[in-house]
Amino acid sequence: MARKRENTTVAVAAAASGYVMKAAAEAVRLGIAKMILVGDAARMQEIATADGLDLAVFEIVDEPDNYAACRKAVSLVVEGKATALMKGDVDTSSIMRAALDRENGMRDGKKLSHIAAFEPPHYHKLLFVSDCAINIAPDNDTKIEIIENCVNALHHIGIDVPKVALLAAKEVVDEKMPITATWAGLVTLHNSSDRMNGCIVDGPFALDNAVSKEACEIKGINSPVGGDADILIVPDIEAGNILYKSLSFLTKAKNGGVVVGAKRPIILTSRADTAESKLISIALSVLF
Amino acid sequence: MARKRENTTVAVAAAASGYVMKAAAEAVRLGIAKMILVGDAARMQEIATADGLDLAVFEIVDEPDNYAACRKAVSLVVEGKATALMKGDVDTSSIMRAALDRENGMRDGKKLSHIAAFEPPHYHKLLFVSDCAINIAPDNDTKIEIIENCVNALHHIGIDVPKVALLAAKEVVDEKMPITATWAGLVTLHNSSDRMNGCIVDGPFALDNAVSKEACEIKGINSPVGGDADILIVPDIEAGNILYKSLSFLTKAKNGGVVVGAKRPIILTSRADTAESKLISIALSVLF
Repeated sequence: MARKRENTTVAVAAAASGYVMKAAAEAVRLGIAKMILVGDAARMQEIATADGLDLAVFEIVDEPDNYAACRKAVSLVVEGKATALMKGDVDTSSIMRAALDRENGMRDGKKLSHIAAFEPPHYHKLLFVSDCAINIAPDNDTKIEIIENCVNALHHIGIDVPKVALLAAKEVVDEKMPITATWAGLVTLHNSSDRMNGCIVDGPFALDNAVSKEACEIKGINSPVGGDADILIVPDIEAGNILYKSLSFLTKAKNGGVVVGAKRPIILTSRADTAESKLISIALSVLF
Repeated sequence: MARKRENTTVAVAAAASGYVMKAAAEAVRLGIAKMILVGDAARMQEIATADGLDLAVFEIVDEPDNYAACRKAVSLVVEGKATALMKGDVDTSSIMRAALDRENGMRDGKKLSHIAAFEPPHYHKLLFVSDCAINIAPDNDTKIEIIENCVNALHHIGIDVPKVALLAAKEVVDEKMPITATWAGLVTLHNSSDRMNGCIVDGPFALDNAVSKEACEIKGINSPVGGDADILIVPDIEAGNILYKSLSFLTKAKNGGVVVGAKRPIILTSRADTAESKLISIALSVLF
């Protein structure tokens, strides 16, 4: 799907790193996006020679200073020369500082949130999880924006009415588990307002009820979202990050992730991600 | 290992249910434990006839009333006639009320906690997770008891010095993520007191660092627990339950679970658990 999108270009900040350049070369080779590598050009040449990469497939912008490279990559996005921003070999806080700069950054009046995409071996479709990486303990308004950001992203990949499951430890409101009441309240708001449009939101769900029709039948749960969720919304960053790492490290589900909510998607891959995961993240940024 | 334990007997409360009786029959057949089925004997006979089960392999105690059956099964444990308690077709609150009765129950002066055991396809050994089911938002003292209960249980299966990873969303203390500081504090307490004995406790860890040596190397983490954890301690019931359901429903890892901290283990299987999971839980109760 990503290969069919036209005029897609990713600007990589501080790109002088073997694993970043390999992912970028693969994205170009597959026709997913053009890649502009912003960073230390001499160092990139050394890496290309050592790793057998052809620099000619990229556009190179020489900027040896890491923070200046972040600012330059952001400006390429703001000017419309790139359609997504990608972190290279620089810490997350530097690139986010450049991306969120009030004058020259990519802010779009919305909260940022992270969307992770998985292809779990025992599920019948892609599963998106948010937010596993950016918002620590989101308040209700932020929870709504996390949902809206994710629904909006899925609209861009042809999932017109995503099914959104609000995850807790239980599928009913329990007065000793505050998040269960919060989720029930957001479902009421979804049903009675124009917040969280273009999707079906339901919950609270325990994870099994969100992904297993059989588990729903046993519990007597009758919801269009039950057993068929596209999106899992987690209560907080701990639950989200643990789910993310469980699916990627203990399940080895194919996965990628993108930050949305700014003018354009931001790819925050890290060295610990596999090459495949980096490539999937680039593809997601093109699609979203 | 469970088959080698002698004089093991599980008392099942409200046992008149096909799935419970099948798991019990399998435990007897494999020589894991003797099973005392407390419940409606006439109904059990009907189920045995319908499902082709031989009631003669069980000891049957006729008690048609569910709560009375719970009390009777608990009394069998308290009197030493059974070495574990198992929930049959009765709600969790009823059996726990009987088990925790101050006069006739199984209290042992400790907090109860749930231990889940997994055999994840992409991990080199068993992985135990606590607490995914009982303690909702444990305070620090309860967190310590959760760790001690789990370490004590693992000592009973020959894991003499379990490696305990305290899970958060990050592997360093972050002032915006309170659980990371809490875990660092408990590690200090572990190193400087006699709390959490007989184990190695470290953290905070993100899940990848707890289960992947490679992820540790990339992050520069040098800990004996890193990449080799036996026990994962989760921040709260949401993170725990989501991890539990992810491993059992999206990863299909073999799993079982037991409640510890009372005089004897308590098995709280539900209809949604697989037959294999129920059998593993019985085996764990015998071992713990």
